Amino acid sequence: MDPDAVAKAFVQHYYQTFDSNRAALVGLYQDGSMLTFEGEKFLGAAAISGKIGSLPFQQCQHKIDTVDCQPSGPQGGVLVFVSGTITLGPGEHPLKFSQMFHLLPAGGSFYVQNDMFRLNYG
Amino acid sequence: MDPDAVAKAFVQHYYQTFDSNRAALVGLYQDGSMLTFEGEKFLGAAAISGKIGSLPFQQCQHKIDTVDCQPSGPQGGVLVFVSGTITLGPGEHPLKFSQMFHLLPAGGSFYVQNDMFRLNYG
Repeated sequence: MDPDAVAKAFVQHYYQTFDSNRAALVGLYQDGSMLTFEGEKFLGAAAISGKIGSLPFQQCQHKIDTVDCQPSGPQGGVLVFVSGTITLGPGEHPLKFSQMFHLLPAGGSFYVQNDMFRLNYG
Repeated sequence: MDPDAVAKAFVQHYYQTFDSNRAALVGLYQDGSMLTFEGEKFLGAAAISGKIGSLPFQQCQHKIDTVDCQPSGPQGGVLVFVSGTITLGPGEHPLKFSQMFHLLPAGGSFYVQNDMFRLNYG
């Protein structure tokens, strides 16, 4: 398992899916998955997908600036630490964000066990 | 184990120690610990402590803006996701940063298994 390759593929897939078809992100989470979004906590794929789906914008575009990753321990997990910007529609100002994911292996692939997101106000 | 209490106590201890006696941070890491600092990777307490000790400033002051945390899985770990600013001396401009830690239990306390740090350029 190459954590860098896992992280790179995940980041590309996650943000591309977020920007094109947010509802499809539900498949990346499981019942025990956790999201902390701007300090608000959500447990389980359904609640997490509900939150992402209810964000008050119709279109968005992520631009990734940095991706760092490390193996998380003997479970075979990968920690992914992302910084970038999100633009919430044409002509809008890009907002800086940081996000971290803890990916765990399941069935030959990975799911998101932990997800924490923060906007970095300027 | 209350992840919020662990995260809060860790963050307070870590940044207070960083700002007053950086060399003492070595005790928070073990041989298998990993640091990714602005994309550069370090493995083990000695290498990590060497990097932190060699940062090119004599005094600094961290100010924490947000602390988020989640349990990382069945190993009893805690993920801590921090945003804040660091000021590298009197009269200097504060620099925004994000940092994440993966704490694992050992001997009744916790050590830092994973540490990733990024400045968030404005």
